[in-house]
Amino acid sequence: MKKLFIIKIGGNVLDNPAALESFLKDFASIDAPRILIHGGGKIATKLGEQLGIAANYHNGRRITDAQTLDLVTMVYGGLVNKQLVAQLQQLGCNAWGVTGADGNLINAKKRPVKDIDYGFVGDIKPEGVNTKLLTTLLDQNVVPVFAPLTHADGKILNTNADTIASVLAVALGKVADVRLIFCFEKKGVLRDVADAGSVIRHLPRNLYDEYLPQGVFADGILPKLENAYNALNAGVKEVLIGEAGDLVKNTGAQTEGTLITL
Amino acid sequence: MKKLFIIKIGGNVLDNPAALESFLKDFASIDAPRILIHGGGKIATKLGEQLGIAANYHNGRRITDAQTLDLVTMVYGGLVNKQLVAQLQQLGCNAWGVTGADGNLINAKKRPVKDIDYGFVGDIKPEGVNTKLLTTLLDQNVVPVFAPLTHADGKILNTNADTIASVLAVALGKVADVRLIFCFEKKGVLRDVADAGSVIRHLPRNLYDEYLPQGVFADGILPKLENAYNALNAGVKEVLIGEAGDLVKNTGAQTEGTLITL
Repeated sequence: MKKLFIIKIGGNVLDNPAALESFLKDFASIDAPRILIHGGGKIATKLGEQLGIAANYHNGRRITDAQTLDLVTMVYGGLVNKQLVAQLQQLGCNAWGVTGADGNLINAKKRPVKDIDYGFVGDIKPEGVNTKLLTTLLDQNVVPVFAPLTHADGKILNTNADTIASVLAVALGKVADVRLIFCFEKKGVLRDVADAGSVIRHLPRNLYDEYLPQGVFADGILPKLENAYNALNAGVKEVLIGEAGDLVKNTGAQTEGTLITL
Repeated sequence: MKKLFIIKIGGNVLDNPAALESFLKDFASIDAPRILIHGGGKIATKLGEQLGIAANYHNGRRITDAQTLDLVTMVYGGLVNKQLVAQLQQLGCNAWGVTGADGNLINAKKRPVKDIDYGFVGDIKPEGVNTKLLTTLLDQNVVPVFAPLTHADGKILNTNADTIASVLAVALGKVADVRLIFCFEKKGVLRDVADAGSVIRHLPRNLYDEYLPQGVFADGILPKLENAYNALNAGVKEVLIGEAGDLVKNTGAQTEGTLITL
């Protein structure tokens, strides 16, 4: 099967123009099929404040009311997404900005209201991914750039970018050898949290099982690792956690970040 | 060649929720390849006022400074475009929202500064249209929905929606029998401006040439007619000017609006 990179960047890259420019150059230079998923960044919060849209949180998760939905649709789906696309086009990368609504690429369900009403938030599954249309685009050397938005029942829905990346990886894992790359603020998963140089270069499942009872993994990294093994169990070939600045190396055989495999 | 409808709607439809809902139902019901191009509507102006972005005009044309560019990228490319797509998806139409930057669908040139600097405004030509990728989407029963934005040199550019519709029609006129439909506020071109019922149902070039010296055409409609004949001369099969509410009839053989042909 063909190799496919599914790469997620978060706000820490989007909010730093120099880091973003460098990242986009690296991303454009990769000579392989690839998909980019971007998060939000601080601009939605800033614009929301200017427009007097109050941010409501529950346990650290933002509640997406109707005003917030319009805000993220504008900022993520419009401003951030189209600026990324225009910059990548200039770098010779045939980027194509999308949300999950476009071409019904990711069909979601609005999160059911239980104790908390998270508002216009989409929950998604690999079965909701329009693999055929995505493959058609990839076959034309097009590079899809996903904003963290999906849809259901005539409404755009706010959707976690990490989740979109994982779900795309699982769906496309059936037709390609997917390496799912999460760019975060550290070089990779550390053997010793106090030592930034102690990156675990390769973390196969048996090593994870050995390290886990030793308390090697900090609380912050554990859910990421659990998600990674879930994706691998669902057919993704490799998951990599690393720094945005190491992207090119992390798409190669000798990675700087942590390569996670079964 | 296959039939293709290229349909442009303006702010008068976008700003009226009932008219828009009715239009989208009609648009979704058309059983033929089609492309929608939407204008802006009042929401960009309203949001601009809330954000304190001053609107600058020269001879009725808005100057697109950097702040205004961000505003229209958010509102046209994000909010308006994605809401239209989500609504069409619910109606069973596989809509896919795009700007000219996505997939390099419409490559523009920033308007040169002469007496006036219009700012981040894109001028476009049929040669700048990526006919191949558009045809690939249409062949998958996808319905492209264009926001009035293009790109050049790493920047999104504000671009007139009528112009985008005409340029797409000319470019795709080489591979399809294009009927270019402009939805405007009247039923069609009137024989007598004082009589709303005097729609000219068919306006071939020889009839236009006969009516023109008689002063039949009001000043407002003349540039639209000139654009229509330019498009026809460049290979578009038919141009239709009519009311949004008559869309279904205007895609048929017995049109309510004015069908313009050579």
